[in-house]
Amino acid sequence: MLRLKSPGYERFFQSPMLEATFGGGEANVAVSLANYGMDARYVTVLPKNDIGEACIRELRGFGVDVANIVRSEGRMGIYYLETGAVQRASKVIYDRAGSAICDAKVGDIDWAKAFAGASWFHITGITPAISQGAAELSMEAVRAAKAMGLHVSCDLNYRKNLWKYGKTADQVMTELVRYVDTVIANEEDFQKSLLLKAESAHEVEGGELNVAQYQAIAKLAMDTYPNIKRVAITLRESKSANHNGWSACLYNGKDFFLSRKYAITDIVDRVGGGDSFGGGLIYGLNHYPDEQTALEFAVAASCLKHTISGDYNRVSVTEVEGLMKGSGSGRVQR
Amino acid sequence: MLRLKSPGYERFFQSPMLEATFGGGEANVAVSLANYGMDARYVTVLPKNDIGEACIRELRGFGVDVANIVRSEGRMGIYYLETGAVQRASKVIYDRAGSAICDAKVGDIDWAKAFAGASWFHITGITPAISQGAAELSMEAVRAAKAMGLHVSCDLNYRKNLWKYGKTADQVMTELVRYVDTVIANEEDFQKSLLLKAESAHEVEGGELNVAQYQAIAKLAMDTYPNIKRVAITLRESKSANHNGWSACLYNGKDFFLSRKYAITDIVDRVGGGDSFGGGLIYGLNHYPDEQTALEFAVAASCLKHTISGDYNRVSVTEVEGLMKGSGSGRVQR
Amino acid sequence: MLRLKSPGYERFFQSPMLEATFGGGEANVAVSLANYGMDARYVTVLPKNDIGEACIRELRGFGVDVANIVRSEGRMGIYYLETGAVQRASKVIYDRAGSAICDAKVGDIDWAKAFAGASWFHITGITPAISQGAAELSMEAVRAAKAMGLHVSCDLNYRKNLWKYGKTADQVMTELVRYVDTVIANEEDFQKSLLLKAESAHEVEGGELNVAQYQAIAKLAMDTYPNIKRVAITLRESKSANHNGWSACLYNGKDFFLSRKYAITDIVDRVGGGDSFGGGLIYGLNHYPDEQTALEFAVAASCLKHTISGDYNRVSVTEVEGLMKGSGSGRVQR
Amino acid sequence: MLRLKSPGYERFFQSPMLEATFGGGEANVAVSLANYGMDARYVTVLPKNDIGEACIRELRGFGVDVANIVRSEGRMGIYYLETGAVQRASKVIYDRAGSAICDAKVGDIDWAKAFAGASWFHITGITPAISQGAAELSMEAVRAAKAMGLHVSCDLNYRKNLWKYGKTADQVMTELVRYVDTVIANEEDFQKSLLLKAESAHEVEGGELNVAQYQAIAKLAMDTYPNIKRVAITLRESKSANHNGWSACLYNGKDFFLSRKYAITDIVDRVGGGDSFGGGLIYGLNHYPDEQTALEFAVAASCLKHTISGDYNRVSVTEVEGLMKGSGSGRVQR
Amino acid sequence: MLRLKSPGYERFFQSPMLEATFGGGEANVAVSLANYGMDARYVTVLPKNDIGEACIRELRGFGVDVANIVRSEGRMGIYYLETGAVQRASKVIYDRAGSAICDAKVGDIDWAKAFAGASWFHITGITPAISQGAAELSMEAVRAAKAMGLHVSCDLNYRKNLWKYGKTADQVMTELVRYVDTVIANEEDFQKSLLLKAESAHEVEGGELNVAQYQAIAKLAMDTYPNIKRVAITLRESKSANHNGWSACLYNGKDFFLSRKYAITDIVDRVGGGDSFGGGLIYGLNHYPDEQTALEFAVAASCLKHTISGDYNRVSVTEVEGLMKGSGSGRVQR
Amino acid sequence: MLRLKSPGYERFFQSPMLEATFGGGEANVAVSLANYGMDARYVTVLPKNDIGEACIRELRGFGVDVANIVRSEGRMGIYYLETGAVQRASKVIYDRAGSAICDAKVGDIDWAKAFAGASWFHITGITPAISQGAAELSMEAVRAAKAMGLHVSCDLNYRKNLWKYGKTADQVMTELVRYVDTVIANEEDFQKSLLLKAESAHEVEGGELNVAQYQAIAKLAMDTYPNIKRVAITLRESKSANHNGWSACLYNGKDFFLSRKYAITDIVDRVGGGDSFGGGLIYGLNHYPDEQTALEFAVAASCLKHTISGDYNRVSVTEVEGLMKGSGSGRVQR
Repeated sequence: MLRLKSPGYERFFQSPMLEATFGGGEANVAVSLANYGMDARYVTVLPKNDIGEACIRELRGFGVDVANIVRSEGRMGIYYLETGAVQRASKVIYDRAGSAICDAKVGDIDWAKAFAGASWFHITGITPAISQGAAELSMEAVRAAKAMGLHVSCDLNYRKNLWKYGKTADQVMTELVRYVDTVIANEEDFQKSLLLKAESAHEVEGGELNVAQYQAIAKLAMDTYPNIKRVAITLRESKSANHNGWSACLYNGKDFFLSRKYAITDIVDRVGGGDSFGGGLIYGLNHYPDEQTALEFAVAASCLKHTISGDYNRVSVTEVEGLMKGSGSGRVQR
Repeated sequence: MLRLKSPGYERFFQSPMLEATFGGGEANVAVSLANYGMDARYVTVLPKNDIGEACIRELRGFGVDVANIVRSEGRMGIYYLETGAVQRASKVIYDRAGSAICDAKVGDIDWAKAFAGASWFHITGITPAISQGAAELSMEAVRAAKAMGLHVSCDLNYRKNLWKYGKTADQVMTELVRYVDTVIANEEDFQKSLLLKAESAHEVEGGELNVAQYQAIAKLAMDTYPNIKRVAITLRESKSANHNGWSACLYNGKDFFLSRKYAITDIVDRVGGGDSFGGGLIYGLNHYPDEQTALEFAVAASCLKHTISGDYNRVSVTEVEGLMKGSGSGRVQR
Repeated sequence: MLRLKSPGYERFFQSPMLEATFGGGEANVAVSLANYGMDARYVTVLPKNDIGEACIRELRGFGVDVANIVRSEGRMGIYYLETGAVQRASKVIYDRAGSAICDAKVGDIDWAKAFAGASWFHITGITPAISQGAAELSMEAVRAAKAMGLHVSCDLNYRKNLWKYGKTADQVMTELVRYVDTVIANEEDFQKSLLLKAESAHEVEGGELNVAQYQAIAKLAMDTYPNIKRVAITLRESKSANHNGWSACLYNGKDFFLSRKYAITDIVDRVGGGDSFGGGLIYGLNHYPDEQTALEFAVAASCLKHTISGDYNRVSVTEVEGLMKGSGSGRVQR
Repeated sequence: MLRLKSPGYERFFQSPMLEATFGGGEANVAVSLANYGMDARYVTVLPKNDIGEACIRELRGFGVDVANIVRSEGRMGIYYLETGAVQRASKVIYDRAGSAICDAKVGDIDWAKAFAGASWFHITGITPAISQGAAELSMEAVRAAKAMGLHVSCDLNYRKNLWKYGKTADQVMTELVRYVDTVIANEEDFQKSLLLKAESAHEVEGGELNVAQYQAIAKLAMDTYPNIKRVAITLRESKSANHNGWSACLYNGKDFFLSRKYAITDIVDRVGGGDSFGGGLIYGLNHYPDEQTALEFAVAASCLKHTISGDYNRVSVTEVEGLMKGSGSGRVQR
Repeated sequence: MLRLKSPGYERFFQSPMLEATFGGGEANVAVSLANYGMDARYVTVLPKNDIGEACIRELRGFGVDVANIVRSEGRMGIYYLETGAVQRASKVIYDRAGSAICDAKVGDIDWAKAFAGASWFHITGITPAISQGAAELSMEAVRAAKAMGLHVSCDLNYRKNLWKYGKTADQVMTELVRYVDTVIANEEDFQKSLLLKAESAHEVEGGELNVAQYQAIAKLAMDTYPNIKRVAITLRESKSANHNGWSACLYNGKDFFLSRKYAITDIVDRVGGGDSFGGGLIYGLNHYPDEQTALEFAVAASCLKHTISGDYNRVSVTEVEGLMKGSGSGRVQR
Repeated sequence: MLRLKSPGYERFFQSPMLEATFGGGEANVAVSLANYGMDARYVTVLPKNDIGEACIRELRGFGVDVANIVRSEGRMGIYYLETGAVQRASKVIYDRAGSAICDAKVGDIDWAKAFAGASWFHITGITPAISQGAAELSMEAVRAAKAMGLHVSCDLNYRKNLWKYGKTADQVMTELVRYVDTVIANEEDFQKSLLLKAESAHEVEGGELNVAQYQAIAKLAMDTYPNIKRVAITLRESKSANHNGWSACLYNGKDFFLSRKYAITDIVDRVGGGDSFGGGLIYGLNHYPDEQTALEFAVAASCLKHTISGDYNRVSVTEVEGLMKGSGSGRVQR
């Protein structure tokens, strides 16, 4: 997906230019994994033109395996982004109608080939939100992944400005989630995508989070969908567009883990924060013996993402572990 | 339409930014007319979001009347542009699927209101090339214009990368042209849009133009479509992406006028060159007593356009007339 | 007025470029009103050259009625701006000598035409600070406005680096304010422009504000100038160049209203903050039944202004009302 | 003087930024001389603010002696610049009213101190064109220079958009030139500043130059003003805004020298071209034994200036001599 | 190698920024080949830091195989570049002392692994010019390549500002060339690197080239070094820094081929032009049945390179073949 | 030294450009002193090329005396900089191998000439960290300075990524410090450069500082090196990359002074912060009668430095004293 951002904190078209980079849920996770040295393969449908090729060139540069990306006649999906400050929220305008992935349909991707040699498949709730075809393709993907024995993770990622093609999020996601091993979500995602809600709601807009009830909702999800083996919930406290609290918890049906909380007082770019958590969690679960450490890696990785411009989390394992072990005091490295 | 251009002479995505301005055939003509002090009204369908509003804000700034622009749910049409140099041609990638105007349909625009008080309607062959709906809307427009007594001009503007929705250019344009008083075109447009071809073809790719046969093709068009009152043909000699010869001729069924020829040796931005000719011609025909002067104004105006960045021709009547009367030697004004 | 700002937080001429936008007290208010959908007309004198025309084009783009702007031989007034950070204050260098408005004189503007159909006139204390001619023109304006039955508002806006032409602020403003219905000011403005001071002074440079005495000073102003119907006072707590507290109060001679207070922890651009309050207040007083809501709108609008680059407050009624009703937690809109 | 230029070939305010550098006739000559290793002192009046200091800092960086620059209360003079292309001329908008030098008056500069140890004084016809005070100061300067035995050179530099204060160029310059030893000019300068015209006029706007008559006009000037010891005439053939022919001739009352002619086919920045000739000539006359070589140095230096962005001629003696001796074929140096 | 270029046509440090991209002889050839769809592997030594990784990321993005790049403790080699115009030549300042490749030594690269599966090895005369170690490594490379049966091509690429470590170019290159099958060079290269000179020298600095004698020098090279199977000579006519004539010839010991000549009238970036010829030739020789076509591909490819910013030739086979077959008239593609 | 910084908060090479300015320990101090109006002379070895000249031009612009800078064949030393945010630290990559100063050796600088007329010599611990030659040159410098009766100050400035040439910091610095009158350091510097450590270590990474023990370490240094007359210690509390606490203390062997502490909540550029303290201290000790005021000047100056982009502290004495006397509330100056 092409990300077109107005410069700095400008509103759209104060200057006649847009920062033009690439990103998007699954791509961001793939780049995270490649940055951590894992073999990451990105599977999607992109337009057969210079814009699509530029996206592929960038992903390949990070070391992501792009051999299974399908080229089609459609256009490149876009999102326009305006970065907020203090009380003014960042603003995303989706422009995905007619995109290559939007027009994709069941059968366009050879999943047997795409999944060959893989052990893990990650998908987000954004893809099935784009179009009926993308939703069906997503279902085909998770079914194929399960059939081929891959571990499936899904970031529910509810987006209220998508889901325009006639289905609601819950109609699709309650079905898709039946193929998922590891669910990643925030509280709103559970409500909107799975219609799950813990009893005492907390205030989403700000204030301190009531951590206690997150275990309840995780348990509820696992009770409702027994296929789910693990639920990770990101806990964002929005104090302002510049300042968020950031932590996460994880429940595996038995133990409940709560991470360290970071005060991200001077956010550089918040978009892709959730994806960087997903990427960190997949790395962590595959490289550390315990889920607490995996969770801490994911939270530290995504904490750092908030200091990086662009969708991708351009950090190394060394840097993430440095934060996990250190104070995050930001002293110059020289 | 949003125009996304890579900086300078860069290929797409050498730098992570795109120059982002607005433009498009009819909008460019409207801006030209407003710059010349005429009352210009731009009628189209634009998306109901910040991108559409930014486009409207810019047009309003030039003094174009935007009160009849319809807002809809679609997206903003885009074209990506890469500026060529010498032997490397400029490259346009159209990205118009799903745009507001692409999804527009007959009845979306109140033509009686849009044409109220107007005396001239200008349309290009790009709009009917986008979609079946846009083509039908174009037909509705020219019919309404004729019915309300407006003079109709049309720049045939054949674009081979559009016309993807099932109709060929000639299927639509041979019908639409029956409502046109003033036709603007180049030789290729006549062939592809109207299937008209003078006997001895000239070499489109370069070399000196055979002016003689342009009168023949203009006459052929007027014989075939007796409603046409005037044909203006732009004569571009492409020596390289930086250097074009530029002139035009005009036939009114009786007299044939040939303009001065300009050597545009160091082109700054060639896109919008044809539209600036259209805008200049409409101004000229409405302000000068003779068609030779009108034609010279149009050619001088569009000559200057090649020195202006962006789609719009940001020049004044004084500047165009200065070139018409002067040598074009480019001495500093101070 | 042309605003020439060094990039980012740079001091002047660290880079050989200046951000060049337009702004200025009354223009900023006009743009706010146009953004809120009101009919706003901007009346001034601008130079008859490309710089003046560019300013007019921008204002027209926002929908401001520019038909009554007078073109003269003078130059475009300029202010140079350097954005401060933390303990380093932002710095403004005025460069207004010889500007078109500076050289304007009584009779240059046809007030009957300028005020035709209008119900409200807004002026700031910056205009009469520029020159004797501008001061006399300001007096002529408020007299004409009162004579034609317009409501007159004035933002006292004391600027110590102006008032160089031989008059002090109080000499002019104590006269001008006799034609004003709604006064907007901060405490310093009352002292310097009207020589009014409440008994126990508070610490202007920082610390918590003593709200109590603001009612006293408002009452004092209304007692001194019985024509004043309403006093609005902005309450800025400067903690650093990046972090201000922001609220306001309003007294109508009977009731005293105090607004919600916003912590603007990460200011993007503080210049134009007062003007955005003025614009918000005029909108609020004309659209809400009660003055408390009008005040809250004004404060929320100007709070958001601090997050916008440039002089203009590029926000909509929806966005301002969203902040009034919400927590200002800055969660991404997508 | 501050030079505010729109980026690239853009018209004013297509982008919200201006390239901001310093320059101006005499400053440009001083920088040329410093670049060639000569002791150059720049004497003027600049504003006592950060803009003035930035100008001084830049000049000092080049090695120009700035110790005699006077600071005053005025503003920094500005010229806005838009770079033309092909048939569209570059455009300069002067904004000098109220500038420090404009408001300067006789007595502001201590010429005895300013000229101490100097052997040459250079002035241009732009300074006396700004204001009555600047004209009187210019007269005071040339008189003081002559009295102290300095060689005086003057570039007549006629500018039709200045000379607004009540005097015509010839009224002032015919007097000032009586103190000048070396006159630098083009043909138009002779006509407008000294009312001198050779019999058969050539076509100023383009075409080949009639070199023969330049000797006539030089002789006429020396006959009229017997104090003049030498006349240098720059010969610019404007083929387009991008392509000029460039050469010069010099007459010393006895011999007439004509320089090599350069085809400057792809001009980068033409502003300051004349000043770079002046700087080159002063260097040449002071470093080469014969006037032909001095003239060739001046022409080669100013030829190179057309390839440099900004007012200053950022080239070295080695580079100028390299062009004088070489073919100017522009092969990469590596 | 990191390429640090001043913006546009600016001299160094007119602006406080440098365009920072990567490039260098062999890397440029590798990128060309990858762009044409060939399997290209780049073998070098780069620093083990973020600068080295960024270089590798970019190359990987183009599809170049970077698995055999060795990381070491050294620094990233740099060249500073200033783009010339007309008579002012572009300027390169090499900054390669202490670079990773400069400090590399025999044994640092596992050639057996690096050449595994390869059929062609390309090297330039720049690498052995850097240091004694790099020269020895180059010798080791060509010997290993020959031993493993690869075809070896070498672009002699004489650079007078390198060769500072005690050896002259001819001392090293006359030995290295004994392992080369295909030699690429211009006339100066033959003289400086191999001490070969055809009898009647032509004027290197400009003017029309004497093609006849190129066959003589090619034959001389092949007679002197019987291992050489083919000599390709690029023929650059430097008319100015913006305008070059460009063609090439090829001799295989039997037939002599001369290519079409292109007038590159408006050069965008000339650096990397020779490398793009090398890349084009290797592609051509491997994909076309005849050497004339291979030569034409190489010349057309490198002609297009002159229109591309940066070291790399960002063009496709389709584009190169389009130029070979077309007129190069640069008409917009849309 | 050339400083190459990625734009904004970007990681290296997200954009193909680097902000390119100059800086470095001693140069930064020289610029501070020149900005305060003192006579400052910068003595170093720089490359004899355009990069070195650009550095010299900038320093000369500030008024630094550059007449004693030696030009040599080496390269310009570089440091690459990436600005951190919140928990992500800023990152410096040194690239100094083979630089002119790195290759300098005893005898290259004529110290008698360099120190003529001077009363104070300042050096940092960075120079002797670069190479054996630079260390010996540093020793030669301090010895010459002492011999000529200059006061010597030294900022210990330990850099763990330098000291690669075979010596450890303490081996060199324990010798060099014997010639120093005023030592500037932070706690880590004492440990690493002088092997001095107060008994109860505080937490370097964050948290409140234990001021008490700083007197102990200062006393220890003065006891160990009786030549030291004064020790100044900067006290940085790193809360995040954006937010530091900043203060300092000074011990003269008799009295211990502790400065005001500043909360620098929104750091713009932290690099050069220590140097700006050094420059402020030298100014303060030379202009104020008491050491407390000198210390306060140094701390206020360096506090302001954190709000300035680039290495240099672009502030005036007026601005520093303004902060010393004021609240630092950052109210706009206009």
